[in-house]
Amino acid sequence: MDMTFDLNAQANKNRNTDGTTEFLRALYRSDDNAAIRMRVDDSCDRFLNASDASDGNSIFDICAKFKHFDMPREGISLEAYLTSLERDVLPHCSHLASPRYLGHMTAPIPQFLPEIGRLIQTLNQNVVKMETSRGLTFLERQVIGMFHREIYRGSDVFYQRYLQTLSSTLGIFTSGGTLANICAVWTALQRAQMNTPIVESDRSAAKIRPVIIGSELMHYSFDKAAELLGAELYKVPVDNQYQINLGAVAQAISSCESEGRRVICLVAVAGSTDYGSVDPLRKLSELAKRANVHFHVDAAWGGGLVLSESNRYLLEGIEFADTVTIDGHKQLMLPIGCGILFFRDPELSEITMHHAPYAVRPTSFDQGRFTLEGTRPATALYLHAAMHVIGKTGYDVLFSDSMARARYMAQAIESRPEFELIVAPTMNLLAYRYLPEEYRNCTLSAEDNEEISAFNVSLQKLQRQKGDSFVSRTFRPVPQYQGQSLTLLRAVLLNPLSTAADIDFLLNDQVAIATQIDEKEHGHAQQ
Amino acid sequence: MDMTFDLNAQANKNRNTDGTTEFLRALYRSDDNAAIRMRVDDSCDRFLNASDASDGNSIFDICAKFKHFDMPREGISLEAYLTSLERDVLPHCSHLASPRYLGHMTAPIPQFLPEIGRLIQTLNQNVVKMETSRGLTFLERQVIGMFHREIYRGSDVFYQRYLQTLSSTLGIFTSGGTLANICAVWTALQRAQMNTPIVESDRSAAKIRPVIIGSELMHYSFDKAAELLGAELYKVPVDNQYQINLGAVAQAISSCESEGRRVICLVAVAGSTDYGSVDPLRKLSELAKRANVHFHVDAAWGGGLVLSESNRYLLEGIEFADTVTIDGHKQLMLPIGCGILFFRDPELSEITMHHAPYAVRPTSFDQGRFTLEGTRPATALYLHAAMHVIGKTGYDVLFSDSMARARYMAQAIESRPEFELIVAPTMNLLAYRYLPEEYRNCTLSAEDNEEISAFNVSLQKLQRQKGDSFVSRTFRPVPQYQGQSLTLLRAVLLNPLSTAADIDFLLNDQVAIATQIDEKEHGHAQQ
Repeated sequence: MDMTFDLNAQANKNRNTDGTTEFLRALYRSDDNAAIRMRVDDSCDRFLNASDASDGNSIFDICAKFKHFDMPREGISLEAYLTSLERDVLPHCSHLASPRYLGHMTAPIPQFLPEIGRLIQTLNQNVVKMETSRGLTFLERQVIGMFHREIYRGSDVFYQRYLQTLSSTLGIFTSGGTLANICAVWTALQRAQMNTPIVESDRSAAKIRPVIIGSELMHYSFDKAAELLGAELYKVPVDNQYQINLGAVAQAISSCESEGRRVICLVAVAGSTDYGSVDPLRKLSELAKRANVHFHVDAAWGGGLVLSESNRYLLEGIEFADTVTIDGHKQLMLPIGCGILFFRDPELSEITMHHAPYAVRPTSFDQGRFTLEGTRPATALYLHAAMHVIGKTGYDVLFSDSMARARYMAQAIESRPEFELIVAPTMNLLAYRYLPEEYRNCTLSAEDNEEISAFNVSLQKLQRQKGDSFVSRTFRPVPQYQGQSLTLLRAVLLNPLSTAADIDFLLNDQVAIATQIDEKEHGHAQQ
Repeated sequence: MDMTFDLNAQANKNRNTDGTTEFLRALYRSDDNAAIRMRVDDSCDRFLNASDASDGNSIFDICAKFKHFDMPREGISLEAYLTSLERDVLPHCSHLASPRYLGHMTAPIPQFLPEIGRLIQTLNQNVVKMETSRGLTFLERQVIGMFHREIYRGSDVFYQRYLQTLSSTLGIFTSGGTLANICAVWTALQRAQMNTPIVESDRSAAKIRPVIIGSELMHYSFDKAAELLGAELYKVPVDNQYQINLGAVAQAISSCESEGRRVICLVAVAGSTDYGSVDPLRKLSELAKRANVHFHVDAAWGGGLVLSESNRYLLEGIEFADTVTIDGHKQLMLPIGCGILFFRDPELSEITMHHAPYAVRPTSFDQGRFTLEGTRPATALYLHAAMHVIGKTGYDVLFSDSMARARYMAQAIESRPEFELIVAPTMNLLAYRYLPEEYRNCTLSAEDNEEISAFNVSLQKLQRQKGDSFVSRTFRPVPQYQGQSLTLLRAVLLNPLSTAADIDFLLNDQVAIATQIDEKEHGHAQQ
């Protein structure tokens, strides 16, 4: 029998004895792989060791390089492609791995993880179902269970029963915290409907749409969740510590009740993205229990700390959450794409179950029965690797070090007259601002604060453009200024390779840039 | 100034002159990286070259190996970890890359892509916003635009205007087709509400919930979308070609209208997951236009074919879709995790826009304004690499080859009395079943068909357990048997390395397994 297919002549003419073409060999059996690997190594090294100075291009300059819109007709060699990548793309990446870039919620990835990634992609297992993942389905359930235990401290009997049971799961992997939060609210809504069916016309009737209560620092993924699910957010103010105001929560619940509005979910933030503040979890759980409301903890940022003996006290009460969101790609230092939603009671996972005739069968181990997403990569292997190679002791060191860096930076800010510390670190985030000279050591009016905010926007933009160091900025109401919304500089002290010298460099860099701005604005050199 | 932080003594004692500890060096500056790389190479090679025979373990045997639920206290060396991975995990993966595994919708990944993946993870750019991705935001928009042009064939002026505009996008990357479909329906719902506001109480009042119309072969992600959004699916039957019945669609629209139910979205399937069938896109678009309804094409499976000059005629009319879903990780052979939703009119992308104070600013290039997900990896780089290295000509060869393989398998099935071809390939999928000897060449009753279905379930399960070859199975109504639901074997002819010999091997393997079943059931050897 003829082993070849009716291919077009061009592809067929170089067919090898094993039936492959040169083209297929180039894709699947290339001998040049070692050379390719070295090229990629070089690109990685160049990125990791890059001087922090940006490429000197404005974003419009960079944009101009990506305006071609015709897909190439003929393929080019991988060598040629890598050359164009090195020339046209890689120099324009953000220097996220720089120890002087302290504004992002991702850390440089430990170097073994991209190697695990190469393995994940080569295996290309699809954990939506057993047939396409086999052992990795059980491995995924195992790491979810291990982490679940660090959060909830369940008994041996509990995990023996639920870790690998057919009918439910202790958690689901998602592409990130946003989807985990959406799934949590979805679960809460369905749960509320099961307990006391919401009359169909209730769900979106203006006054009686289901309500999600949380602080004004709730992540914007809850806005998305509310919009998708036809629910409504009830945002409650925070106190001076940027923690949710408990009295306001109680009031929100009773005001909803008296208006006939159904509260389906109480959200606590465990590590706000702006300040790292943690809501009072235990007390919120009590309020939720009393009101018979689903209690969700968004610990996308802070949740990793449960692995750290020295720091998990910051998350006291997380074990009372019905559901918990964690992002592996934040404090756990995994590559982007590793969100997890945990269910305290695995029966909660059954509330949003679904299946399909050609896939994810109801009586299988198919993990896709429980996930909003369908086809999914085996990102669990990153967490598995990190749990085993770093271990709890390792994470404890990393987190303690990170906290120490934040304290160091807070002290450095407080010791310099040029800066004002706005939010001291509870975790490894802090917020501060630059004070132009005329605003130091005096009482500030609302107008003054607006001037200072404008100055800090300019400062952060110039710093970003200069590219030697980086913090991000936010715009939030600040209690110590009567709730006036201010532009704040926001530092994230996550990168394990950042030293005190890097932090000093960043602050000095800001002072130098600020001086330049002052000179321009005032048309003369400052004293 | 002291360069070190107040670390615990154990971590501090081995601090190096550059301020790092041995522990940090092991994570970030290891000299053993070359050795690690070779270990991972070996694991990859072992997987790719594995004999197709499975490990001989039942899934319960495998499950038993993943029952430990305590996270390790102390980390182990990467060497030790890789050893345990090789021993306990990798042998239990699904042999998805085998050329005799013809049941999955993923192909083996061209070998350069895991190298690109290593680069993506090392860069770890977050395309949610400019600050964390810079050039890769523009690159993402560029590949979206290139693909958009292959679908919609817009003018130069159109792409000059919209490719890199600030206010909208031509598409969004998602973690997969499920999320792309959810976002499409979300857009449709919001669009309908903008055109004629749905009275709040309408949205979920039983009779007047928004309706999504599509065929019974619609992917189960639409069930999820409907549940999330408080909408309702109206499933219309397919004809003998497994294409949506146009008369039934028109009837569905008018029956909804007369009942006061609001149709928000008409869904066409372009490559059904079971059969590869494509709905009549142009005619559906006309129906949608007449009814003023959003027209979405779910081309998760089939959409890649727009890149193939020889095969894109199969998708005729896709250019009339308001939105199109494509999965890069299916026909385009990228690693899992690359869904895309395209907007014909970029203004559609503005309908679900959102932003946050500390991120994704409204007046920025931040691509996160348009996505349901938040933090996202730069998976666009996989598509960028594949577009440039494979090119349109390369994809044309891959698709034509794949179609030829499907035709070959269909002929091989039809030439063997042991099999019945149920659905001939329109694309590179087909459905068939095994016929035990007593059911050949005779008229089959409903009872006979049930027996045959039960037999095919056993056959597929045994084949999967034996592990030398694989097809998946589904359970669907079959027109030529009066709509009776039958168990069907489902082959996906995507793997470019599968040869005619592999297909013959698979069919022979099935005949051998079937004979074994017969022998067991009848207690004697068959003739």
